[in-house]
Amino acid sequence: MSENLVYLNGEYVPADEAKISIFDGAISLGMTVTESTRTFAHQPYRLRDHINRLFLSLKAARFDAGMTADELEQLTLEVWKKNEPNYAPGTDAWIIHNITPGTWVPSSGQKPAESKPTVMIVTLPLDLSYWANFYRVGCHAVTPFTRIQPAQSLDARIKNRSRFLYTLAESEVKLVDPQAQSLLLDTDGFLSENKGGNFFLVTNNCIRTPSTINCLDGISRQTIFLLAEQLNIPIEECRLLPYDVITADEAFFTSTPYCIMPATKFNGTMIGNGQVGPITKKLMAAWSEMVGVDLLEQAQSD
Amino acid sequence: MSENLVYLNGEYVPADEAKISIFDGAISLGMTVTESTRTFAHQPYRLRDHINRLFLSLKAARFDAGMTADELEQLTLEVWKKNEPNYAPGTDAWIIHNITPGTWVPSSGQKPAESKPTVMIVTLPLDLSYWANFYRVGCHAVTPFTRIQPAQSLDARIKNRSRFLYTLAESEVKLVDPQAQSLLLDTDGFLSENKGGNFFLVTNNCIRTPSTINCLDGISRQTIFLLAEQLNIPIEECRLLPYDVITADEAFFTSTPYCIMPATKFNGTMIGNGQVGPITKKLMAAWSEMVGVDLLEQAQSD
Amino acid sequence: MSENLVYLNGEYVPADEAKISIFDGAISLGMTVTESTRTFAHQPYRLRDHINRLFLSLKAARFDAGMTADELEQLTLEVWKKNEPNYAPGTDAWIIHNITPGTWVPSSGQKPAESKPTVMIVTLPLDLSYWANFYRVGCHAVTPFTRIQPAQSLDARIKNRSRFLYTLAESEVKLVDPQAQSLLLDTDGFLSENKGGNFFLVTNNCIRTPSTINCLDGISRQTIFLLAEQLNIPIEECRLLPYDVITADEAFFTSTPYCIMPATKFNGTMIGNGQVGPITKKLMAAWSEMVGVDLLEQAQSD
Amino acid sequence: MSENLVYLNGEYVPADEAKISIFDGAISLGMTVTESTRTFAHQPYRLRDHINRLFLSLKAARFDAGMTADELEQLTLEVWKKNEPNYAPGTDAWIIHNITPGTWVPSSGQKPAESKPTVMIVTLPLDLSYWANFYRVGCHAVTPFTRIQPAQSLDARIKNRSRFLYTLAESEVKLVDPQAQSLLLDTDGFLSENKGGNFFLVTNNCIRTPSTINCLDGISRQTIFLLAEQLNIPIEECRLLPYDVITADEAFFTSTPYCIMPATKFNGTMIGNGQVGPITKKLMAAWSEMVGVDLLEQAQSD
Amino acid sequence: MSENLVYLNGEYVPADEAKISIFDGAISLGMTVTESTRTFAHQPYRLRDHINRLFLSLKAARFDAGMTADELEQLTLEVWKKNEPNYAPGTDAWIIHNITPGTWVPSSGQKPAESKPTVMIVTLPLDLSYWANFYRVGCHAVTPFTRIQPAQSLDARIKNRSRFLYTLAESEVKLVDPQAQSLLLDTDGFLSENKGGNFFLVTNNCIRTPSTINCLDGISRQTIFLLAEQLNIPIEECRLLPYDVITADEAFFTSTPYCIMPATKFNGTMIGNGQVGPITKKLMAAWSEMVGVDLLEQAQSD
Amino acid sequence: MSENLVYLNGEYVPADEAKISIFDGAISLGMTVTESTRTFAHQPYRLRDHINRLFLSLKAARFDAGMTADELEQLTLEVWKKNEPNYAPGTDAWIIHNITPGTWVPSSGQKPAESKPTVMIVTLPLDLSYWANFYRVGCHAVTPFTRIQPAQSLDARIKNRSRFLYTLAESEVKLVDPQAQSLLLDTDGFLSENKGGNFFLVTNNCIRTPSTINCLDGISRQTIFLLAEQLNIPIEECRLLPYDVITADEAFFTSTPYCIMPATKFNGTMIGNGQVGPITKKLMAAWSEMVGVDLLEQAQSD
Repeated sequence: MSENLVYLNGEYVPADEAKISIFDGAISLGMTVTESTRTFAHQPYRLRDHINRLFLSLKAARFDAGMTADELEQLTLEVWKKNEPNYAPGTDAWIIHNITPGTWVPSSGQKPAESKPTVMIVTLPLDLSYWANFYRVGCHAVTPFTRIQPAQSLDARIKNRSRFLYTLAESEVKLVDPQAQSLLLDTDGFLSENKGGNFFLVTNNCIRTPSTINCLDGISRQTIFLLAEQLNIPIEECRLLPYDVITADEAFFTSTPYCIMPATKFNGTMIGNGQVGPITKKLMAAWSEMVGVDLLEQAQSD
Repeated sequence: MSENLVYLNGEYVPADEAKISIFDGAISLGMTVTESTRTFAHQPYRLRDHINRLFLSLKAARFDAGMTADELEQLTLEVWKKNEPNYAPGTDAWIIHNITPGTWVPSSGQKPAESKPTVMIVTLPLDLSYWANFYRVGCHAVTPFTRIQPAQSLDARIKNRSRFLYTLAESEVKLVDPQAQSLLLDTDGFLSENKGGNFFLVTNNCIRTPSTINCLDGISRQTIFLLAEQLNIPIEECRLLPYDVITADEAFFTSTPYCIMPATKFNGTMIGNGQVGPITKKLMAAWSEMVGVDLLEQAQSD
Repeated sequence: MSENLVYLNGEYVPADEAKISIFDGAISLGMTVTESTRTFAHQPYRLRDHINRLFLSLKAARFDAGMTADELEQLTLEVWKKNEPNYAPGTDAWIIHNITPGTWVPSSGQKPAESKPTVMIVTLPLDLSYWANFYRVGCHAVTPFTRIQPAQSLDARIKNRSRFLYTLAESEVKLVDPQAQSLLLDTDGFLSENKGGNFFLVTNNCIRTPSTINCLDGISRQTIFLLAEQLNIPIEECRLLPYDVITADEAFFTSTPYCIMPATKFNGTMIGNGQVGPITKKLMAAWSEMVGVDLLEQAQSD
Repeated sequence: MSENLVYLNGEYVPADEAKISIFDGAISLGMTVTESTRTFAHQPYRLRDHINRLFLSLKAARFDAGMTADELEQLTLEVWKKNEPNYAPGTDAWIIHNITPGTWVPSSGQKPAESKPTVMIVTLPLDLSYWANFYRVGCHAVTPFTRIQPAQSLDARIKNRSRFLYTLAESEVKLVDPQAQSLLLDTDGFLSENKGGNFFLVTNNCIRTPSTINCLDGISRQTIFLLAEQLNIPIEECRLLPYDVITADEAFFTSTPYCIMPATKFNGTMIGNGQVGPITKKLMAAWSEMVGVDLLEQAQSD
Repeated sequence: MSENLVYLNGEYVPADEAKISIFDGAISLGMTVTESTRTFAHQPYRLRDHINRLFLSLKAARFDAGMTADELEQLTLEVWKKNEPNYAPGTDAWIIHNITPGTWVPSSGQKPAESKPTVMIVTLPLDLSYWANFYRVGCHAVTPFTRIQPAQSLDARIKNRSRFLYTLAESEVKLVDPQAQSLLLDTDGFLSENKGGNFFLVTNNCIRTPSTINCLDGISRQTIFLLAEQLNIPIEECRLLPYDVITADEAFFTSTPYCIMPATKFNGTMIGNGQVGPITKKLMAAWSEMVGVDLLEQAQSD
Repeated sequence: MSENLVYLNGEYVPADEAKISIFDGAISLGMTVTESTRTFAHQPYRLRDHINRLFLSLKAARFDAGMTADELEQLTLEVWKKNEPNYAPGTDAWIIHNITPGTWVPSSGQKPAESKPTVMIVTLPLDLSYWANFYRVGCHAVTPFTRIQPAQSLDARIKNRSRFLYTLAESEVKLVDPQAQSLLLDTDGFLSENKGGNFFLVTNNCIRTPSTINCLDGISRQTIFLLAEQLNIPIEECRLLPYDVITADEAFFTSTPYCIMPATKFNGTMIGNGQVGPITKKLMAAWSEMVGVDLLEQAQSD
């Protein structure tokens, strides 16, 4: 197996040697705009949607990538092409974009826009073994002490790496259960999102999820809307509360790596009958079929 | 002049070559706890206070530095000793600590605490030329569109590098004035802090500043309390609003590098008579005297 | 007429003698989960829906009833069968469930779940004479000083007897009008609910009501949605404000005992033309027809 | 040992037989105003202060006790006199007042004030064994999912038994630690109170506690202010956040039964060095001396 | 050209001489309820809709006009008939209603309702030259420092002249750009409205606008809903954030005088491609056709 | 008695004829900055303090008066000198300043600052008969439905005439009692101010009043601080809630015309013993003595 290469500012370097200056805005300002795409059967899935969203995030972040969306897409495919031979059939990859405004020297009054952006494109083996068990029995969703910041502080739709509060939240829920997955509330107490994923409920055969006023407009979330339409399952956005989880029939998270992760317990209380529910299973099957990869099977073999 | 060295995880490396893995939590999670100390006449100022605060931040962040406060203090002095020869008399340095939970591989379910922390200790020339003019004529404080996150999302007293919203705020105020300095409001509309500093008003010979429920408990801020007491100027913490700035006699920011930066304009309106005020000047003089370095003179010579 | 019996923890006791220990959690903790069902022409109406909601409330309250929903339903019908002979034709009954976690001795560190639940099933004559006049001329809805607690404090969908604030609210509106009915606002100033009922507006032939983020998901409320659909009247959930009441054409409350109570005055201002409106009347007629009991007639004969 | 008697609406009944109608407002409305006094060496402690606060609660609750404060005080002393012989030397009692507006029949349009109040006066053995260990090693304070209701919903200073949300909160923290004690936040994320007690921090030798805008104005809380003054320890009210607990040197709860309960852990993180601190110990000693009862000793012998 | 006449409390006076007492509630209380109608080709457009809304505002304001809606409509047409000859073909007029509770003498304890209302009906030449350029290249929408008051303070649907905060907001945005148009946020950071208009976004061919919980229910806004339906363009009300503007394809304001004003820049960032978009143009064309007046042409000739 | 003259933009006109254009910003924008001073024994009381505050309001309002504070003070004394002969000994006058940005023609894109300000200086007989009874028996303070706007919408310290919501509030409380005086809450439920005055409580011999984050910084309010200091009565600013009024011993409003108005009832509940309290009386006496006018006597003779 050859080396896993990373695109870093115009060069290809082995992942182990991919390093950036400690003066980069990524570190000193947390100013990294990001995307995570994955492959299915070695095909990047909805790569262009991810790149388009990346450019919206950059616009909102008021700096640019130093290249067009087309160029970035081409470059990304090139990176993947270089690394793909390292991936055995049946396995898949995570493709990560991190873009920062570049180096930033404190005390200079310099604006982020004045330096050249740092562009990182990375592929990583998508090891789903951590989630394999959740596919079968569901995870335990727990609301952390920390609340997601309101949109007037930072809109959750700008996909970025200033994730201090999310990381803290993820640590906090481990106090309840070492395997717990965080489900953050917003400052009004409404459900928002997970550290890296969206959240859905199924109640009386209807799928419900928070609107994007307090969470990422996830590509996987969009996929659920598509699949629900195909499967003729009603789906709607609304303001949801912990009571809605407690009284739901089914629940699941969505995120790029695992696609759908069933949740069968919430704050110590069983969701529905505590089993992965029929609509969640139907969605997982439809997703697997759509991409030609059996999600559970792949995770179990990781 | 010899090379400027950076302490990076047990090694000394030239600043230009100081790099960290793009998989470090600093980049992928914005999970950097930080401090900025400065020297006066080559003496680190209140270094131990900074290190103590760093350890409080780490405690709140739920990971540790891999060493004690004493060890970190020793190490810091060692770094400074190595680099000090590079600093001409009359100039001073910025000493920065960045500590992260170390590398973090996404999709592995790994907790930040499971890897070894990344410790960076950096000294940088303290170039105050950007602020020199503000010492004389005052800066223009402007409230950005972005509001600071509430403490229940992330307490502003945890000094960290997940500064996306602050950087955005700093960009936004440049729309009003290319030299504007941001003065963030909290989500209830009260004054909080600047991207890297605290804010003070002088009204009827009394100094007022927001309490730390929505801003950093700055070491420079603490110094103002000390100096005010010495100079017998009443000082108090309270909830402040934009109206308080508009009707104040004087205003200033405090931060480690510049210590005191007068503000003479707010959202396009003159503060007081638009000149740096007598109490601000008295505090600047007292500070200069206390540390044996004339703040304005040093800035002008940078 | 024989005695009215109450089911109390496995026994049938006369209502006059139905008492519980002053150490019960009902009294010391206000920890009573509850439902109120009514009969129409001696038939319990939607009893199973009420019992299902009771079990959702119990789940959210983190204690259980000591029996299944089926068992509780059976028991309830048995209570009603015993008491029904006391009810003359043309009259109807109120069936109340109160379930508490049982006795709770303070200072013992005991958790509610550790004692045996207290189960009360009560039937009461449904005396609607208080509401009879409101059916004809409408009531006066008034917003009290007290605001409903936000869902992150206690979700209004958990039907419980910790009703201190609602009782206070009901007292407060009597300052404006001794016959006033409370219409509580939430802490953002939006309409929520009455002490024991939901609230609806009719504007331009469309029925509108708050969503259940700040009010009980009433069974009578659900009935209005059913009847509106049958009558082909558009109906929707939305955030409503006092201005919406002032400018509405019609308004009414819904609750288990009175089903529909028209409101023709709001905070001293006439709603519409100050008369019970045509759509309200149509809904009352449809309801009467559906259950085979003329609501107004029954109330007037009480 | 003779029977423990309860005063119930003008009669003395054995505690085991003290029951109230299931139609009492205590049960159907959660409308119970309450106080808990304790004895030290068989002397009721600050009984009149408790009774005065009870009358303020009644005033705010808009119903009355049917007797004056003097009468209630006399009656209370009488109850205690009757029951005191049951209490061995070295043990103490809890004296509880519960006052409700009396029976309330739903559907009658009756106002609480229209019926005769229900007055209960109860003494209970004060078994402190549950807390004994906390005196020595401190308890684990945990913030529950549930937030205290804002004052505009129900002012926490009205001491009442509509405690559904507090009981829920207490259940929730047991998910983190079966011995955890709840420390509720308000809807803005600030510290408020425990289910039945106030909370204090010690930081840099200064005692701090939330002001009563979001918590009970506890009699034990008032005692801490008195003792602090006597001991010459600075004490102040302010808005406190979880960060303040994490970075405090010491913490403790106060409540009538246990007086002072040290907290040495908060949300899984050690407070200070994780030991009961010197100022907490000093306050416990001063309290013990003031009342002539060694708090720890008594708890250990229970 | 004859004189422009104003209807003022039963009399016709030349506009130049139209004055009211400085003791009128308009001045001393800001208590003016208002409407602004315009003509197209000399025909008052939706006059009755404006008058109906005026009467809703009056109802909410708790005082009356001293005449019926029919009478006011008649009177308005009469005013217009008198002044119409002054308006050249191709030009149009603005018809303004201002109604106040009349004179109000401070310190008398007098209620507004006790005096006779002041009724003003004014026609003004509709000079659109200020907006002409915005029709072609779009305006710059900027969020001011000032936030719209929440509905529980004053519902934005009561069209009134207590516009201090809106005027301030309009001044504030000029700091960013002398030609900027204000786009106010509410106190939760959501988009609300302009000083005198509503705001719409076009994203993925769908039109979106804030619901009227925080903005005027504009007649022009209603017209957009009608035109969108006719043109078969999906349109919906939802909670919108600054991020939605930054990532929108098109944006525009609506208001009685200019009907539709495209916005092509937001807080310094280009909206879409920075040009007036195709759906905005389609709506402008449809509006022009509907009223028989070419909006752009008329503005350019002013 | 000669005519009462009004200063209006450089001219003196009889009060009856003092009129301004209906196109003035006072009417069309509610953009009037204002002050109300009163005389005691024909001496303007703290006139300069009022004028200074007026200039702070103007600064915050972003337009100017067209003259200096000195000039305005001179002019005001001149107006008073002209009108004083009309005032019998024993009576006093109200001196009102209203300043607007001048005429403002809608649709012209004109900024308020572009026109010449309108300056009105008015004296009015100070008829206190409405308040005379309140001096003796106290008024009834009632919280209206309407909440004061938060400072981020409009800071209550800018004394202005955009008083729509205050006037509405004043109407609303008359529903409870035709003599009620409004006591507005802010949007968090805390006490703020009256339509034209501040509010104070006396509890345990300590005077408390809201801080100026949600109310006018009243000159009469400042006078209470002075008198309290002279009388050695502790006084403090804090966040106050309705519960604080219900449990207070005394309460009073302050405002320029009546100086101190005792409140003895709140939302239908007696404050203290329902009589004007001793500290309130002491303050009234001290005020009377300070200004040489017996407040009660003067009011009774009006």
